[in-house]
Amino acid sequence: MSTDSLRRSRDVPGLVAQAREGDPRAVARLVTLVENGDPCLPELAAALTPYTGQAQIIGITGSPGVGKSTTTNEMVRIYRAEGRRVGVLAVDPSSPFTGGSILGDRVRMQDHATDPGVYIRSMSSRGHLGGLAAATPQAVRVLEGAGCDVVLVETVGVGQAEVEVASLADTTLVLLAPGMGDAIQAVKAGILEIADVFVVNKADRDGVEATYRDIQGMLALGERGPGEWRPKVVRSVASRGEGIDDIITAIAKHRAWLSEHGQLQLRREHRAAVEVEELALGTLRARIGSLRQGSALPTLAAEVAAGRLDPYAAAARLLASLDQVDGDGG
Amino acid sequence: MSTDSLRRSRDVPGLVAQAREGDPRAVARLVTLVENGDPCLPELAAALTPYTGQAQIIGITGSPGVGKSTTTNEMVRIYRAEGRRVGVLAVDPSSPFTGGSILGDRVRMQDHATDPGVYIRSMSSRGHLGGLAAATPQAVRVLEGAGCDVVLVETVGVGQAEVEVASLADTTLVLLAPGMGDAIQAVKAGILEIADVFVVNKADRDGVEATYRDIQGMLALGERGPGEWRPKVVRSVASRGEGIDDIITAIAKHRAWLSEHGQLQLRREHRAAVEVEELALGTLRARIGSLRQGSALPTLAAEVAAGRLDPYAAAARLLASLDQVDGDGG
Repeated sequence: MSTDSLRRSRDVPGLVAQAREGDPRAVARLVTLVENGDPCLPELAAALTPYTGQAQIIGITGSPGVGKSTTTNEMVRIYRAEGRRVGVLAVDPSSPFTGGSILGDRVRMQDHATDPGVYIRSMSSRGHLGGLAAATPQAVRVLEGAGCDVVLVETVGVGQAEVEVASLADTTLVLLAPGMGDAIQAVKAGILEIADVFVVNKADRDGVEATYRDIQGMLALGERGPGEWRPKVVRSVASRGEGIDDIITAIAKHRAWLSEHGQLQLRREHRAAVEVEELALGTLRARIGSLRQGSALPTLAAEVAAGRLDPYAAAARLLASLDQVDGDGG
Repeated sequence: MSTDSLRRSRDVPGLVAQAREGDPRAVARLVTLVENGDPCLPELAAALTPYTGQAQIIGITGSPGVGKSTTTNEMVRIYRAEGRRVGVLAVDPSSPFTGGSILGDRVRMQDHATDPGVYIRSMSSRGHLGGLAAATPQAVRVLEGAGCDVVLVETVGVGQAEVEVASLADTTLVLLAPGMGDAIQAVKAGILEIADVFVVNKADRDGVEATYRDIQGMLALGERGPGEWRPKVVRSVASRGEGIDDIITAIAKHRAWLSEHGQLQLRREHRAAVEVEELALGTLRARIGSLRQGSALPTLAAEVAAGRLDPYAAAARLLASLDQVDGDGG
């Protein structure tokens, strides 16, 4: 297939076959279909199912500027040296207004641009039915189908959406850096409880000891049963490649712990439940969206804005009209 | 009513009457009911509707550590000096795991703790049907019902959830600080498009000129029609109370612009539409949740995790069982 026709292709069996042969353009096209919520996604999901469920999925999150992309880049280097095929998915919840994805950081990963054993993709979820929580595992499945043994899912920002995406991984890394805000801020961002491994990056900077101590202090405070994982804390200077081996080792230890304790299966079932639920909700959301075109919502919203109707009563009326549509054969 | 019985009260007419008389304990109780998604909320919404729709709502967002709480505190001081009654709602998307709300920052606002013209509340949305997007306007309505002329909605973090909450305001402030990550990071967080006013706080620090220039550069890049608002950029050192007057002036200018251009009404209708839609989706989500107890979802999720079923097919089956329940009289 020519590059140009491939760029518009919706030939799912053909694209999956090409992706399995390692054609990066086919992989890119499939992730784009996922990102856009293309109508062919149910067919794609069914086509990929036989080839998936084995890759190790690693989530990487943290505030803007802590060095996520640089760290990811260095991790890719080590996994490649071990002979593993690596996928990187940089998930961007994107602007709620433009749906745009900012690719600035990707240039830092050009080290691996010509390595056929590495796929790197940014992804937003502008059109996907179930949002990022459903689009991300689907995109991971594409990378798995293309033969990746390890998939690194990097999320931008520290909000709830990003935290949820990162928590869909087998192992979740939370990156911090000295001077980026104190420990309370990390707790506020909700990242403490999802971290399997903390990475204090930029460990050559002032304040690293305080940050390290704060994390250890918070971990000491957190109650943890005898059967629970105690998060590792690792220091790195990713820009110089320092400490990356320790990160990889901590991830491997967590992975071994998950397997030994039957947690890997539990995490994967939880992930599948979230994905299925989000897809189902996405379908319901689309049904409401179709009502929006039918002008039930704007009329109700205007009543609410004018103070003539309360929002709960408006929501009840919206749902009643939805059930009506269903009853009429929708 | 005694403090203790008030703390557990669900007497909506009584609580609303007390809140309207300025009893801070009644206001606190009502916000707690909103936060917890109490079953009395539809009744509360109906009871508050006559008293609401007039307050000025100001959103304040930005990365952890830029000084949101300090800035909010200083803004309250000025609005109080103008004789306006002020509500502060610190919205915390909270941990997805514990639903906990971190109150550490609140101590910085103790300046106003004894002022009867100021209500300050942190809020998460652990139980609210429509999440923060529906809980926040409801909590704002409580503060309005209690007589607040201005409500400051401060959101923690820079994720999509926080951005959405902040964008429910009449005027949205985005705080930045020098050295907290470059302009690209701000764009990545999706905050550029929602800002009506940029505040470069900690303007006594190194790098303030670069941050200021970056924002101006991005604003120059953004295409803006002749009828669109061009965001103001203001510098402040909130910890010393500097530049706060300029922030207040910029907010007032934006408010005047909204009124002159018919945008205030449009924003409020948009806000109401989001709120109603989220409440309706919350109800649908609860219907799916009731299926979860009926064990349809865990079974489907286990099939997906085992690679025997794809998630789209699982979601379709989940919805089919939901429609079945509806058809059976649910």
